Amino acid sequence: MKASAAPIRAIDVIRKKRDGGELSKAEIEALVSGYTKDEIPDYQASAWLMAALLKGLSRAETAALTDAMLHSGEVLDFTDLPSRKVDKHSTGGVGDKTSLVLAPLAAAGGLTVPMISGRGLGHTGGTLDKLESIPGFNVNLPVVRFRKVLETCGCAMIGQTAEIAPADRKLYALRDVTSTVESPSLICASIMSKKLAEGIDALVLDVKTGSGAFMKQEEDAVFLAELMVDTGERMGKKMAALITDMDQPLGRHAGNALEVVEVLEVLRGDGPTDLCELCLELAGWMFFLGEAAATVQEGKQMSRHLIASGAALSKFRKMVELQGGDAKVVDDPKRLPRAQHTLDVASQNAGYVTAIQCEQAGTACVLLGGGRERKEDSVDPAVGFVLHKKVGDAVAAGEALCTVHYNAEARGQRARALLQQSFQIGDARPAERRPLIHRVITKSGEKN
Amino acid sequence: MKASAAPIRAIDVIRKKRDGGELSKAEIEALVSGYTKDEIPDYQASAWLMAALLKGLSRAETAALTDAMLHSGEVLDFTDLPSRKVDKHSTGGVGDKTSLVLAPLAAAGGLTVPMISGRGLGHTGGTLDKLESIPGFNVNLPVVRFRKVLETCGCAMIGQTAEIAPADRKLYALRDVTSTVESPSLICASIMSKKLAEGIDALVLDVKTGSGAFMKQEEDAVFLAELMVDTGERMGKKMAALITDMDQPLGRHAGNALEVVEVLEVLRGDGPTDLCELCLELAGWMFFLGEAAATVQEGKQMSRHLIASGAALSKFRKMVELQGGDAKVVDDPKRLPRAQHTLDVASQNAGYVTAIQCEQAGTACVLLGGGRERKEDSVDPAVGFVLHKKVGDAVAAGEALCTVHYNAEARGQRARALLQQSFQIGDARPAERRPLIHRVITKSGEKN
Repeated sequence: MKASAAPIRAIDVIRKKRDGGELSKAEIEALVSGYTKDEIPDYQASAWLMAALLKGLSRAETAALTDAMLHSGEVLDFTDLPSRKVDKHSTGGVGDKTSLVLAPLAAAGGLTVPMISGRGLGHTGGTLDKLESIPGFNVNLPVVRFRKVLETCGCAMIGQTAEIAPADRKLYALRDVTSTVESPSLICASIMSKKLAEGIDALVLDVKTGSGAFMKQEEDAVFLAELMVDTGERMGKKMAALITDMDQPLGRHAGNALEVVEVLEVLRGDGPTDLCELCLELAGWMFFLGEAAATVQEGKQMSRHLIASGAALSKFRKMVELQGGDAKVVDDPKRLPRAQHTLDVASQNAGYVTAIQCEQAGTACVLLGGGRERKEDSVDPAVGFVLHKKVGDAVAAGEALCTVHYNAEARGQRARALLQQSFQIGDARPAERRPLIHRVITKSGEKN
Repeated sequence: MKASAAPIRAIDVIRKKRDGGELSKAEIEALVSGYTKDEIPDYQASAWLMAALLKGLSRAETAALTDAMLHSGEVLDFTDLPSRKVDKHSTGGVGDKTSLVLAPLAAAGGLTVPMISGRGLGHTGGTLDKLESIPGFNVNLPVVRFRKVLETCGCAMIGQTAEIAPADRKLYALRDVTSTVESPSLICASIMSKKLAEGIDALVLDVKTGSGAFMKQEEDAVFLAELMVDTGERMGKKMAALITDMDQPLGRHAGNALEVVEVLEVLRGDGPTDLCELCLELAGWMFFLGEAAATVQEGKQMSRHLIASGAALSKFRKMVELQGGDAKVVDDPKRLPRAQHTLDVASQNAGYVTAIQCEQAGTACVLLGGGRERKEDSVDPAVGFVLHKKVGDAVAAGEALCTVHYNAEARGQRARALLQQSFQIGDARPAERRPLIHRVITKSGEKN
């Protein structure tokens, strides 16, 4: 038996990490729980965060941090529900609306999807903002109601509650103001602590890379993906991470209500190729990890059927209804908020679209009011843009590259200028096309 | 002309240092002044401190930090006093009482010594605590009174005032609780901002190395010394740093009043060899940099005369009197506080003293109540120890190695045990003796 240990002091934990030591589970737990309970002040937490960012955390430390953050609050328990609980998480991008397709699609295939999502920040959109563009849709369900919706239709989509991973909320706010956001281990712990609090059995990660992603470089995306897969597996979850392309907007629509319109197209079997392909791939992995399909291919095939049969769309309709939204939107998308004005961004030259600077395009959407410059900003659900040309497409001089949907003239003009800049037009069709799925990282049996 | 710049944000300065960039003078100034004015919160300052510790600061950054901290408060101006203003600063050790010798000695030789000192912390003693063991001695003079004492007798010794380098006080308190103390640049800026606020022309640094020093390794001491010399010279000061030995206590006495007794011995020409030698060396450099002597050797010779003539002792008597102390102490050291009890620490074997673990010896003094375990502790002026044997001395079994002066029995016994441990007795006289002065770092003309 060990002698009773002296209490763990924050200052010693900071020093150990500063000097490159590997922290024990107990040390990390003491830090996280002390900070969450306000026993450790912000200034010690931020010194530790900076030391962790600069010295790095081992995989064991990252898992311990995730675990401590996860257990700083409520961990949902849906073990009484018979089917497998599976979720998908994306690191965020422009026009990335796959969550709204995947939750009802996976539920239609027999999985339970208890999805807790975030809002848009920076140049990327957020799932909650998109859902709230549906009149009446309530993303702030209490847990008891969340469970009820899940039991009834197999999927439910809400925002983070105060009870889930409070350590992450507090640490994230501190990282945001101390330049300690960009650490793979801290990012991993933040994401995974929230996702694992959902009480899931398996998780599919969509880790974006390219000009519209937070991780512009593929190696950074891969590093983070491997860390998250490892962390989830250490906690007994089935995990897969898809490294996917975010070098141009996904699909054609960006902006909250506009993206819901496109989600409905996908669920009707009528969406743009890249978005449909990614949804099928992610759904395939969800079914495979959730043991509803023997292979990913089989999962993709299931997904195609569930879309063709209208089962996925039905689930979406049902979820909207159960969460208080106007379910008529599903069959009549014109009921969604619409911007007062539109304007076209025309190509100044004839040629081919060789690139779309994707972060810039996302920023155009924020400028329109469709995203947030600060956390406390509200969003305009109606604004955004619709692309008519994507990378590789031919364009004539004067032909529309995209259409801006706006409510305020000045904002419309600023967005137009930014979108104009973001399109690169060249004389020759780009020879090489970036693949949509760069690679898959998993240990849970790869049967692609 | 430059376009009016955007305000400098703390978060960007933190990120730049985190990513290894070199900060501009304006960025450092914005950080220090913003923090001092409470516009930048502790948690941003501590994240920056950790980034600075781990990524390092260039010499230009270190000088800019020193300058910003210096100008965060009052900078004393004694340019109206005709003689050169010169000071000495030590990084601290055990039995290091040279400041009490050097201030009156340098003043007796015509220099002005506006010495602002600190209190003991950790295993080392502090000049203020030693001075306060003289009944009535006031180290908290207002600046106007400090100046008056300086004008009258050429030296004055006080504690840091609230007006001097408030940025350092605030930053030091934060470093202390965030494990960001051990950065050479931050240490340099902390020391130099306070010393340069004294309005001096030249500064001699005594940078200790060995088992009783903060920097145990000589290369660390040299690195810090070079940084401080460079920083002072960038600010137009004449600088020299002596790397000196702190591998055993300096002199024979440790403890506040006991050290004053030994100071008086030195000023009477009767002190222990190592302490006398170091005082002469440091005084020689003070006279040389203060242009009162053409060479360091000449400065040392002057010092010998000023001691032999009693001029240095007179200055000390005068300063004690002007600062409200009992000047009769100078001629009758028995008037100083004395401990109620003494006990001898006897050698268990015959042989030679091969080492005295100096930090342990310093800690014994703290345990007796002669130093501080926490900042808010008060000190007992009477306690301490007197060494009878130093490294290289022969000792018989049962012969006293040192005498402990104590007031509380339990403390006396704990100190005895620690001191007993700190002495290493070997069969052979140690072949090599560490030199007292390891090296001198200066650009101000070396004429040793």
